[in-house]
Amino acid sequence: MTSFRIAARVPGAEARTGVLSTPHGTIHTPAFVAVATRGTVKALSVDDLLSLGLEVLIGNTYHLALRPGAEAIASLGGLHGFTGWRGPWFTDSGGFQVFSLGAGKVHGVGKIASVFPGDAPTKPVGASLVYLTEDGAHFRSMVDGAPVFFSPEEVIRLQRLLGADVILPLDECTSPFHDHTYTKSAMERTHRWAERALVAFERTQELGPNPSQVLWGIVQGGAHEDLRRASAKTIAAMGFPGFAIGGSLGRSKDDMLRVIEWTVAELPEDRPRHLLGIGGVEDILAAVNRGVDTFDCAAPTRLARNGVLLTFAEEGFRIAIKNARFAHDDRPIEEGCDCPACQRYSRAFLRHLVQAGELSSYRLATLHNVRFMVRLMDRVRATLSAGCSPTSDVVREPRE
Amino acid sequence: MTSFRIAARVPGAEARTGVLSTPHGTIHTPAFVAVATRGTVKALSVDDLLSLGLEVLIGNTYHLALRPGAEAIASLGGLHGFTGWRGPWFTDSGGFQVFSLGAGKVHGVGKIASVFPGDAPTKPVGASLVYLTEDGAHFRSMVDGAPVFFSPEEVIRLQRLLGADVILPLDECTSPFHDHTYTKSAMERTHRWAERALVAFERTQELGPNPSQVLWGIVQGGAHEDLRRASAKTIAAMGFPGFAIGGSLGRSKDDMLRVIEWTVAELPEDRPRHLLGIGGVEDILAAVNRGVDTFDCAAPTRLARNGVLLTFAEEGFRIAIKNARFAHDDRPIEEGCDCPACQRYSRAFLRHLVQAGELSSYRLATLHNVRFMVRLMDRVRATLSAGCSPTSDVVREPRE
Repeated sequence: MTSFRIAARVPGAEARTGVLSTPHGTIHTPAFVAVATRGTVKALSVDDLLSLGLEVLIGNTYHLALRPGAEAIASLGGLHGFTGWRGPWFTDSGGFQVFSLGAGKVHGVGKIASVFPGDAPTKPVGASLVYLTEDGAHFRSMVDGAPVFFSPEEVIRLQRLLGADVILPLDECTSPFHDHTYTKSAMERTHRWAERALVAFERTQELGPNPSQVLWGIVQGGAHEDLRRASAKTIAAMGFPGFAIGGSLGRSKDDMLRVIEWTVAELPEDRPRHLLGIGGVEDILAAVNRGVDTFDCAAPTRLARNGVLLTFAEEGFRIAIKNARFAHDDRPIEEGCDCPACQRYSRAFLRHLVQAGELSSYRLATLHNVRFMVRLMDRVRATLSAGCSPTSDVVREPRE
Repeated sequence: MTSFRIAARVPGAEARTGVLSTPHGTIHTPAFVAVATRGTVKALSVDDLLSLGLEVLIGNTYHLALRPGAEAIASLGGLHGFTGWRGPWFTDSGGFQVFSLGAGKVHGVGKIASVFPGDAPTKPVGASLVYLTEDGAHFRSMVDGAPVFFSPEEVIRLQRLLGADVILPLDECTSPFHDHTYTKSAMERTHRWAERALVAFERTQELGPNPSQVLWGIVQGGAHEDLRRASAKTIAAMGFPGFAIGGSLGRSKDDMLRVIEWTVAELPEDRPRHLLGIGGVEDILAAVNRGVDTFDCAAPTRLARNGVLLTFAEEGFRIAIKNARFAHDDRPIEEGCDCPACQRYSRAFLRHLVQAGELSSYRLATLHNVRFMVRLMDRVRATLSAGCSPTSDVVREPRE
């Protein structure tokens, strides 16, 4: 079974290290969970992931259910057998994709509306492609246009077939531009869906390839203190063995940190806390110091595919390898990095590959950025284990 | 220095095994030379190439000179230092790219016009973008539109800077639709360019990072017996230490084999023979049996990126992994293949990656196809060493 144990705490603070044990391996927290939306971390192989020291992946129920289909994956051994990644898997419920196709599209926003243009969204991306009811979410498949219905029960059934170690209930993400009234009613519906998910989860234990799965709860409530606290209390009271912080995190980084503080204050101390979709270096450090244990985010891998490489050596923790100053630079991306790209290649050659649009550049950049995230979390855990709070300066120059 | 030694012969036939020794490593022939046009085999890393048992790469002077530039590469250690591939390098002269932008475009053809529509080309792709004179080829950079001039001397200078172990002189490739008169005059110009290349080569030994380079001659003459024999004799008489068979190989596979026979008959037996741009399994077997030692071809890697996987187990030596019959197939691409894709993944998962357009699919498919080519050439050499001629049946089921 999956269990969580707190290993070390920072005196007088929420931050802690822990060990999340799953039937498929151990995750040392705080941990970065690499995004493998369709069963693979983009541009990497399983052998790559193992060589990078990564411990856990998160797949996406929405994408995998539409292609190749949860039944097909179950028949091929679940995510562990099908993808070849036999370590721990999380799956997200598809709630965020429902949001992306619905309110996220209408409001033209993601999890945080960090460039706040006023009281209302100003750049709608399009009309909603989702029809939400009390029963669930109706939408059309992006693969073949067929109608799809995601209910809380169906999303549990799909995740039972996928067989990840940690799964999540269907939730309704709200936008930073939803008002208190809408955010409250969506939150209450998310709570009702969580109850239905728990019932469905209990009834389907024998369905998929991994009867040891655990279902964590998702806290909603937008950036409203009363709602976030109410949601955290309500979801905690349902007895989930772990929790994810979902939905809108407000209109600024400060909003996000307040949302984390309100939520963590109401969650049981002894259970793991996951922050959905956040993975910037500063954001991770701030969230760790507020008691978050795990993070997933597509940014490190997406940045890599855009030629943005993460490094401890620069302000902002990144360089754009296309920059002309790297054209004759025979140094590795980062001195001291042990990733395959830094071990073998110069900045000049990587820049050439990126400029030429060579496929190999996507993998090499991704290898580096994922290894950076693993090294970052190693430094975070070492700092916490020494009883200190990790900061930018500390992770930049860790003590030996 | 680079030298070539014949190791074994098939009695009564042209086929042989050999050892081509270069300052950067040894090539066991017959060998497949993997195409690394812009300094990388598409989708693979140097560590990948080493793990696959590949011995030699061929880069392209035209592409590398335009981006990132031969001077930049020279300043970063030449191709060996810049790309991290420290084994043997060939570079092609750019003659074929000049053809592709010129007559190849006007005539709508490649090396072989295998679907022969009549006496003249019927599908011109466009007007020529190249202006050829006795001096060389004038064209515009595909990178920034700047005018570029490739003379025989300039192409040697560029390849001195790139520093490959085996380099080639600028030649004029002709189209299968050029007549005898044009093909003859182009061939004669290629011969004059070869003389100029030899002079330039002697004068530039100290220019680049690799003073041990060798310059091989290119035989032209289209699919005309008198011209091919004359070209082979003329180029051989210039004393090149190795030879490449270039240009048009006619209008059918049979034409191609006759071209090889005429050419090989006029070349010195003790020197290596490279067939430019050919890499189909049946073509390689037929050419080996006619005395060819090395082959380069983009097809195995290009097919991989299109989901076509090479295998000894199927008619035609290939499967299209997108085929629906593989959707639930939990077997590897090929039983007995030791490539990283076959060691870790099922056909069903690879099909999923290809269907979803995942970047990782390009690398995994390319790893398999390049490993297939290495295994193919291993089997070819083993067959030759046993005194037999390799055929499709023999390489499919090699004796232990």
